[in-house]
Amino acid sequence: MPLLVTGTVGIDTVITPTGRADDVLGGSAAYFTLAASLFSPVRVVAAVGDDFPPSFRAMLTSDRIDLRGLETREGSRTFRWAGKYLENMNQRETLRTDLNVVAEAPPAIPDAFRDSRVVFLANTHPAIQWNMREQLPAARLVVCDTMDLWIHTTRDELMKTLAVVDGVIINDSEALQLTGQSNPITAGREVLRLGPRFVVVKKGEHGAVLVTPEGVTVVPAYPSERVVDPTGAGDSFAGGMIGYLAAKDSFHYAALRSALARATVVASFTIEDFSVRRLRDVTCEELDRRVAEFTRMLAIG
Amino acid sequence: MPLLVTGTVGIDTVITPTGRADDVLGGSAAYFTLAASLFSPVRVVAAVGDDFPPSFRAMLTSDRIDLRGLETREGSRTFRWAGKYLENMNQRETLRTDLNVVAEAPPAIPDAFRDSRVVFLANTHPAIQWNMREQLPAARLVVCDTMDLWIHTTRDELMKTLAVVDGVIINDSEALQLTGQSNPITAGREVLRLGPRFVVVKKGEHGAVLVTPEGVTVVPAYPSERVVDPTGAGDSFAGGMIGYLAAKDSFHYAALRSALARATVVASFTIEDFSVRRLRDVTCEELDRRVAEFTRMLAIG
Repeated sequence: MPLLVTGTVGIDTVITPTGRADDVLGGSAAYFTLAASLFSPVRVVAAVGDDFPPSFRAMLTSDRIDLRGLETREGSRTFRWAGKYLENMNQRETLRTDLNVVAEAPPAIPDAFRDSRVVFLANTHPAIQWNMREQLPAARLVVCDTMDLWIHTTRDELMKTLAVVDGVIINDSEALQLTGQSNPITAGREVLRLGPRFVVVKKGEHGAVLVTPEGVTVVPAYPSERVVDPTGAGDSFAGGMIGYLAAKDSFHYAALRSALARATVVASFTIEDFSVRRLRDVTCEELDRRVAEFTRMLAIG
Repeated sequence: MPLLVTGTVGIDTVITPTGRADDVLGGSAAYFTLAASLFSPVRVVAAVGDDFPPSFRAMLTSDRIDLRGLETREGSRTFRWAGKYLENMNQRETLRTDLNVVAEAPPAIPDAFRDSRVVFLANTHPAIQWNMREQLPAARLVVCDTMDLWIHTTRDELMKTLAVVDGVIINDSEALQLTGQSNPITAGREVLRLGPRFVVVKKGEHGAVLVTPEGVTVVPAYPSERVVDPTGAGDSFAGGMIGYLAAKDSFHYAALRSALARATVVASFTIEDFSVRRLRDVTCEELDRRVAEFTRMLAIG
């Protein structure tokens, strides 16, 4: 089932307690795309500036990734983000955000992408998310992310977007800010009342919670000892989840549960190196092996 | 297999954002005992003062609980603790600790308990834990807890105790303080080097991690929306785990993994009401149903 993602493709600088990576490929759509492409072909809709390195475009190039919607805008500059992780990698500080091309008109959806049936609206202004969704009437499964900025500054528009999506994937602090509920299950149930059929609350190293009218599923994170760079873990999680659902062409509770396991495992690869270095190299064999290990670990009769 | 627990039986006052309970039954051994007795007979070794209410003794009385080692010391006062939970229930503040009888000579182990094969040494001075372990030479499985106070003030004695136990059940902040490692798996592996064959790192609402030479298992907490009072959750977890192991008479990795599920579920009952109110009323049917629900939830193929 054709899967489309729209979000940010950017250039990151990341500092961790043990190392740093300067001017590397980043952005929600970059992580999502590489993660989802492990399961399904992906169509990318995003804009970059004329400073976007050809080598970064090459990193996103594969038989399963359609870059016809990755617009290089002449005279514009690519989105840039710099952040620093604190001691235990659970907290980070944003050092710099240069919106650049992201502050301009949103990227256009190529006509060839109009028949997309599964859509992920990565974090951006909710009015843009809403508009993208309207331009994709063939979509059967539309899932979005958001962030604290939009929750606080554009709540009404966010509510309008939540009313037209099928699923939401957010982290625990966003769930709290959106609903005022610190319990992720209670928060998830409140989000369901706003429109979506399912909500995933991500808790970073503590796993994730899936809340649906059919039931609740909690999964731990994959037990990782080597965390090099958590950047992109959440977007990789979303990519693994939605990529798997698109491949299965099923959005029922059982499929959502299986997708959670894939999402968790894909994110566990991302954090093993800076940027998309590890994620890009994951083979199907490695993925299958880790998914089998993870589901076996959880099978505690 | 006869299971013995030695620890604190006390009187707690607990304040939460939504309510309070004054002068209620508390203490590590009280929670552990009621939790473990869901699976196995339990022998209690603890001391209380002459102010210990007969109604609290009655709460611990059952066919499966042997209170011959619960010594009422004339002229002494019972251990008392008062604490207050902050907004999201993850953090608490100790308002008062009166050691009372706990600061006196440790309770005696009745001769009839000397053949105990499974022993849980709840949190206390590590020299007392070591001494208790020495008095129970028939023990095949000895598991201990500890706390920040002993890690910081009696590290050498704690090391001596860790060298003579088979398992350790501690929370994440204790694991960090003990090893300097914030990753619970890495911390667990370091604790294994000190002697034990298994380590469980409890993460409260985020579940627990079992670390053994055979493998690592991570479980989420049972998805609870109604948390009334988290006091005793950790001791109930330990009770559910060790009680199940004693009943199974197996301490292999597979048994430890199954025990984790029981531990998680038993703790999920404890937090549904103040003190031991909910824990004391759990029926075998409720327990079995929730264990089945939890293991089914985790089975995500």
